[in-house]
Amino acid sequence: VSGNSITALLALDWGTTSARAYRVASDGGVLDERSAALGIQHVRDGAFVQALASLLGDWRELTVPRLACGMIGSRQGWIEAPYCPCPVALANLARTIVQTPGGELHIVGGISCRDDADVPDVIRGEETQIVGLAAMADGSLLVIQPGTHSKWTVVVPDRNGAPEIVAFSTYMTGEMFAVLREHSILGRMMTERSTLDTAAFLRGARRGSALSAPGELLHAIFGARTLPLFDELDPSSTADYLSGMLIGAEVAAGRQWAARHRAALDGAWLAGTSVLCERYRIVLELCGMSARVVPSDVAARGLWQLALQAGLVTRSL
Amino acid sequence: VSGNSITALLALDWGTTSARAYRVASDGGVLDERSAALGIQHVRDGAFVQALASLLGDWRELTVPRLACGMIGSRQGWIEAPYCPCPVALANLARTIVQTPGGELHIVGGISCRDDADVPDVIRGEETQIVGLAAMADGSLLVIQPGTHSKWTVVVPDRNGAPEIVAFSTYMTGEMFAVLREHSILGRMMTERSTLDTAAFLRGARRGSALSAPGELLHAIFGARTLPLFDELDPSSTADYLSGMLIGAEVAAGRQWAARHRAALDGAWLAGTSVLCERYRIVLELCGMSARVVPSDVAARGLWQLALQAGLVTRSL
Repeated sequence: VSGNSITALLALDWGTTSARAYRVASDGGVLDERSAALGIQHVRDGAFVQALASLLGDWRELTVPRLACGMIGSRQGWIEAPYCPCPVALANLARTIVQTPGGELHIVGGISCRDDADVPDVIRGEETQIVGLAAMADGSLLVIQPGTHSKWTVVVPDRNGAPEIVAFSTYMTGEMFAVLREHSILGRMMTERSTLDTAAFLRGARRGSALSAPGELLHAIFGARTLPLFDELDPSSTADYLSGMLIGAEVAAGRQWAARHRAALDGAWLAGTSVLCERYRIVLELCGMSARVVPSDVAARGLWQLALQAGLVTRSL
Repeated sequence: VSGNSITALLALDWGTTSARAYRVASDGGVLDERSAALGIQHVRDGAFVQALASLLGDWRELTVPRLACGMIGSRQGWIEAPYCPCPVALANLARTIVQTPGGELHIVGGISCRDDADVPDVIRGEETQIVGLAAMADGSLLVIQPGTHSKWTVVVPDRNGAPEIVAFSTYMTGEMFAVLREHSILGRMMTERSTLDTAAFLRGARRGSALSAPGELLHAIFGARTLPLFDELDPSSTADYLSGMLIGAEVAAGRQWAARHRAALDGAWLAGTSVLCERYRIVLELCGMSARVVPSDVAARGLWQLALQAGLVTRSL
């Protein structure tokens, strides 16, 4: 919470499914926030001006800079903000900022990299959370951002101590879970439950993290059908078993990936919903890693840093 | 084709999506076949008697035994025929045969096994194809049956030379491809094409078979989005790239699995649609394995063998 209450920046985390706006004070403190189900997939016919007005409400009257991150800057969003190739110094990310044609909004670009097979990978929005995290945590960072597309990122200080994103990797874990649950035979035997079945989740995570070959995942997920079929898993626990298996497989792969990029594997930062962060924390712990969860307003903190770098705002304490 | 034309058996391959009936002569030769979109998922309110009549047409008049294999014998089918636990001598499979309450049909049971993680696995229908194959091919067999759920099976002669299914493994490759194409972000950039893009398919297969960690598949599939996004893959080739990757991952895992079960890895038998068998043949060849495709009526041949074993029919040449 800020020591003063004058708004210096409107910071927007505008993604595919939802949009969130923060009122940020001139010392970088978050004063207030608003959200709406106005993710870019819900905005029809390019009506972003109207969506922005609806999200901001009376904050529209505030004559302060507005800086957004996330899919609003993608080809499907308002205006495309470029991808900055990896490795990238966090201090240089502000150079990707573009402005909408009507001047309504500044938008941060994303980051691209080439993976170990020379295939492109992208993040958009997560980089801003990492800027916010790096402003509050020193040294090398391994950051995991679970979600529809989970992102693993390694941040390392350069020789001058300035943090640099050296590599990142996307895992389609959340979307994979969703399509298997909603559209495959695995979902047909699943019934709802309100709380996590930790035992079933761990059973899946142990299996997923111990698989011997990549394609073995295509076999192991079938257990989410056969185990309930043979009365060896309750139908209400099957979703948690599958979730554990997929996250376990991701964490095992992510650990190998992070080691190749010389990240320390003793612990990781988690940024995401509390439900997902808790699931990842359990699996990381299973693999001997500690986990710390970043503050939920870390994107606003990152946007503040980027606005400072871009000269959109100046700090006053 | 048979040397005589007297029907001795009606053989039915009755699966989830479709049903096929064969008229088999007393020397085991297939005389004729009929099919209908009357897979068990299309049969409403347990109306299997009517579905059978519709599939058989005027073959209903034939007073010969009727033997079926496939999901018609599952819990969701007409009557449940039991799973026989692995390893199982092919000569003992006939013991799983049950009869419908009204005597309309005999149905072959499936096979169950425990995988390397002690999780149950099942096949139902594929075992009958393998019986048919074993009647025409000697020695140890590695059989791959691609489809919605691809099955790998190792058949080894016991000390008396009688073939035995020692292990099998299910890979949800076909269903995974379908749900990703139809319901995930990966499908959104895919456009149709009428023929296989072999280069894109091979590119995916090389990637899928070379992955280093199980969960790496959750990362690699994201290439089916980023490659077209960066104009490095044509949207009309993306489906073939993803198909190649998933089949490549399956084949790499299947080879490791088969080696653990002491199968020879120089070649494999393929049983499935010609389109799928060709894709698997390409990937097997990429891995240094030859492939032979079983005759399309191999299920009818297997049902004939099982009918002989069960004493439902007697051979006359």
